Amino acid sequence: MARPENGHQARLLGLLRDDGPRSRAELGDVVQLSRSKLAVELDRLIELGMVESAGLAASRGGRRSGIVRLSSRLRFAGIDIGATSIDVAVTNGEMEILGHLAEPCDVRRGPEAVLERALELLGKLREQGLYEEIHGAGVGVPGPVSFREGVPVAPPIMPGWDRYPVREVVSRELGCPVLVDNDVNIMALGELHAGLARSVEDFLLVKIGTGIGCGIVVNSAIYRGVSGCAGDIGHIRVDDDGPVCACGNIGCLEAYFGGAALARDALVAARSARSPFLAERLAEAGEVTAADVAAAAQAGDPVAVEMIREGGRRVGQVLASLVSFFNPGLVIIAGGVAGLGHTLLAEIRSVVYRRSAPLATGNLPIVLSELESTAGVIGAARMISDQVFSTA
Amino acid sequence: MARPENGHQARLLGLLRDDGPRSRAELGDVVQLSRSKLAVELDRLIELGMVESAGLAASRGGRRSGIVRLSSRLRFAGIDIGATSIDVAVTNGEMEILGHLAEPCDVRRGPEAVLERALELLGKLREQGLYEEIHGAGVGVPGPVSFREGVPVAPPIMPGWDRYPVREVVSRELGCPVLVDNDVNIMALGELHAGLARSVEDFLLVKIGTGIGCGIVVNSAIYRGVSGCAGDIGHIRVDDDGPVCACGNIGCLEAYFGGAALARDALVAARSARSPFLAERLAEAGEVTAADVAAAAQAGDPVAVEMIREGGRRVGQVLASLVSFFNPGLVIIAGGVAGLGHTLLAEIRSVVYRRSAPLATGNLPIVLSELESTAGVIGAARMISDQVFSTA
Repeated sequence: MARPENGHQARLLGLLRDDGPRSRAELGDVVQLSRSKLAVELDRLIELGMVESAGLAASRGGRRSGIVRLSSRLRFAGIDIGATSIDVAVTNGEMEILGHLAEPCDVRRGPEAVLERALELLGKLREQGLYEEIHGAGVGVPGPVSFREGVPVAPPIMPGWDRYPVREVVSRELGCPVLVDNDVNIMALGELHAGLARSVEDFLLVKIGTGIGCGIVVNSAIYRGVSGCAGDIGHIRVDDDGPVCACGNIGCLEAYFGGAALARDALVAARSARSPFLAERLAEAGEVTAADVAAAAQAGDPVAVEMIREGGRRVGQVLASLVSFFNPGLVIIAGGVAGLGHTLLAEIRSVVYRRSAPLATGNLPIVLSELESTAGVIGAARMISDQVFSTA
Repeated sequence: MARPENGHQARLLGLLRDDGPRSRAELGDVVQLSRSKLAVELDRLIELGMVESAGLAASRGGRRSGIVRLSSRLRFAGIDIGATSIDVAVTNGEMEILGHLAEPCDVRRGPEAVLERALELLGKLREQGLYEEIHGAGVGVPGPVSFREGVPVAPPIMPGWDRYPVREVVSRELGCPVLVDNDVNIMALGELHAGLARSVEDFLLVKIGTGIGCGIVVNSAIYRGVSGCAGDIGHIRVDDDGPVCACGNIGCLEAYFGGAALARDALVAARSARSPFLAERLAEAGEVTAADVAAAAQAGDPVAVEMIREGGRRVGQVLASLVSFFNPGLVIIAGGVAGLGHTLLAEIRSVVYRRSAPLATGNLPIVLSELESTAGVIGAARMISDQVFSTA
């Protein structure tokens, strides 16, 4: 796949990706290039196979302007590896999902097995005729990543993945550029591209899954911090006398809430028979999970409702500080545990609105993600498209 | 004063500001313009009066290259209004301080009186022959500011300043472009330009003065947040059962530490005679201040030392969360109370290094500012020079 040769071409590709097909006249209005200069750049992009003509626009009172769009052959792949799931999708140049497959998969099976399965799923989409060639792939993994090197770094819940060359392996298999980032950052990019954050430049995405993490978007781009670990809020200490966390420290947010903490607390509630609902689930299945807590809460089980409320209070406590500090335009709550829904959201909102600086919350929406499992794959595709559509 | 006409000219002005006089050959290497194109842009900047020739460089083995520099007539003003002080300075185009005057001044005297005094001080620098014309002025004030409008917004310790048109008034008096921001942001810009943060793109400056605030630098620019109140960390709640803060909430960081909290605690310690040192100061002066606590600690008074340590722990507790979240490359501690020095720094470091995510602190310096009172005025001058040297 060719790359744009200058900033104007890159800008045009980005516009056609985000806004879809446009007439040359409309593009000229946006990029403020002379008609002749614009024609030179667009014709070159057509020559490079990145853009194609698509008929004539309605007249604006003169010669009808030609419509252009991203090449209809363009395909990006998004691979979202979770702690217990794989999602793969193929998109066109405009990041529309053409096909999406998901299945349960334990990340602890290790990088060879998990990536092989992800590529097999992608192969199925190829068999369905969704693509001939992939022009770029984004990969998300549930742990810290060296973005520059494209490898996981000491990921706590991914045994065998430490420094495994994910980018290199996937790039070799697919024969295209690949970028790797953590799952929270790609979800944040998905929300930026296709979700509730479309028009927001600075926002936070809080993912509450097995663990808790935060994607930080500044100026419509992921902020990764100096070592690439910005947004690691799961290990912020909320109580000096709290429970021991899986990380070895005391009183971390994750030790109180998230899928793992909920499963632990649910087990205690089931065994002590404080929650008949959870006790029954335990007897039936031999274990209880965060999903059981959600079901119990939905059934009105007071112990489960209180567990969710208490978790929401802890998350709200941490978020209140971050909102005062960062003054975001939007906070999105996402992830498996966000399926706990409005009980959780109400509690988080109540704490943040009460405790953050009034100026920072005066006009701050705190919302549940509406993208569900597509946020990650769209964000992963968007991440690599940003690179493929840039000159650097 | 003229403005650059395109991005190349703006880039050249920024380079000459930050790196000082350069030969045309050296500039050509950095900006990657052809020799002829570079000559066109530089000659135009000379024509506009923003740049001047300054002799010939040593030979690099061919024709000797001409040295250029920012016009030696260029002057910027930095005005740093504190809760109890005014600092004004005049710089050249390279942000070198040519003259700096400071005096005590209570911001509660109101905007007319305080700004009049600041302009008088600037007038004195004019009488000293330091400038004929000011080409841009930056103003810092100790409270929240609408950066876009150039007015303070509901500043808690600045009675009479709410929405006072600071930018308009100063701009009219000096006949030049003016920008207004809060004191913490201009200090952070000062550290970025001339202090310990010169080579750091993402860092935090924590100012501990009468109150506590934080300047956030992302990608070498101030991050202000959606409502312009990012960095308002003084009102992060550190304890649900804490003292009532001046803002009306409970357990804010500022209610525990900062100049105002220290003065309050010092009075209690003096009256109860737990601290003989502070009791003596109270008897002598009729009041005790944060400066007395610093003096007491230096004299080895154990009550004062513990007050500073306890404050450092609280600041460290908040910073630990922010470091995990933001993953900065540097944390600078500044402000009057930073004069408490190494006792305070040691305590802050100990808490942050122990509690933040290991990846975020692996290579994180936490240091005291070395700029003292010049950070604000240099940062204010830098802020307006960014605008004067831009095309927008």
